[in-house]
Amino acid sequence: MPGIGSKSAARLAYHVLEMDKSRAESLAQAIIEAKEKIGYCDICFNLTDCNPCSICKDTGRDVSIVCVMEEPRDVAAVERTREYRGRYHVLHGQLSPLEGVGPNDIRIKELLTRIGEGEIQEVIMATNPDVEGEATAMYIAKLLKPIGIKVTRIAHGLPIGGDLEYADEVTLSKAMENRREM
Amino acid sequence: MPGIGSKSAARLAYHVLEMDKSRAESLAQAIIEAKEKIGYCDICFNLTDCNPCSICKDTGRDVSIVCVMEEPRDVAAVERTREYRGRYHVLHGQLSPLEGVGPNDIRIKELLTRIGEGEIQEVIMATNPDVEGEATAMYIAKLLKPIGIKVTRIAHGLPIGGDLEYADEVTLSKAMENRREM
Repeated sequence: MPGIGSKSAARLAYHVLEMDKSRAESLAQAIIEAKEKIGYCDICFNLTDCNPCSICKDTGRDVSIVCVMEEPRDVAAVERTREYRGRYHVLHGQLSPLEGVGPNDIRIKELLTRIGEGEIQEVIMATNPDVEGEATAMYIAKLLKPIGIKVTRIAHGLPIGGDLEYADEVTLSKAMENRREM
Repeated sequence: MPGIGSKSAARLAYHVLEMDKSRAESLAQAIIEAKEKIGYCDICFNLTDCNPCSICKDTGRDVSIVCVMEEPRDVAAVERTREYRGRYHVLHGQLSPLEGVGPNDIRIKELLTRIGEGEIQEVIMATNPDVEGEATAMYIAKLLKPIGIKVTRIAHGLPIGGDLEYADEVTLSKAMENRREM
């Protein structure tokens, strides 16, 4: 399991052995329930316990904007900002020819189907700001532009509260390049 | 001295005592020379050993763009990107009412004088992306806009190579807000 080395694993195992029988059973039950009840939303492919998920069902959200993300945990990160009021689309991965991940291995087709329904006007590419994330964003942008969809990319620049002196060169030159009028 | 605690200080002191006399003298001489030879450039107020500094003297650089920075070490950071070809203006501080630093304590007047000479068309506010840095940028922008100078701010957003999941909420919501068309 991620983040659990052999020592932590042993400590967890001893902890389970020292538990009351009833608590151990309810932990086991919770694991089974998680696998049974949590699945992917048929619309946005985020993790959910109901289908469609609570975000896709929410009529207060803007259906014309879709934010494309790599993983469900990225959705959670954007939701924590409490500012974005559109919907999501989770790709479940990023294009990575080196690892054999092509366009058919992530949920791009499903995004195109959603766009085909006609409600979506803007797609925000919020894949990670690394090489594969940029490539994924570019690939999808090239697919969507001919259909006449507005495709935007989240901003690259200096993190808030950061220090210019400690910014890496690529980030700093992106921040200079993408400067905006005040 | 910054970053030197009492143990490091003692170690440095013993190291000086163990030095050859000639090496100790040349170290002392280097400190004196640094204070004597290095001063502020009369134009941009960056640290320099000649006046005006090598950047202000360089005719290959664009005189119409000035990048306003808080400290000389920030100039070094931007120079490392090797992409910016304009000039600089070092404020030597940021506005901070709590610490009693007002507009007259940093080199804002000198910036206005430079702009009064008429060559500058764009001022890039590259103060730090923290509260005082933002306030300083806003203050200067308000002074310059009525004169008809284009004032831009370096981009805020996700650092390159970063991970969306680990971005703090303010940075993430700025990155969403400042998204740009692909």
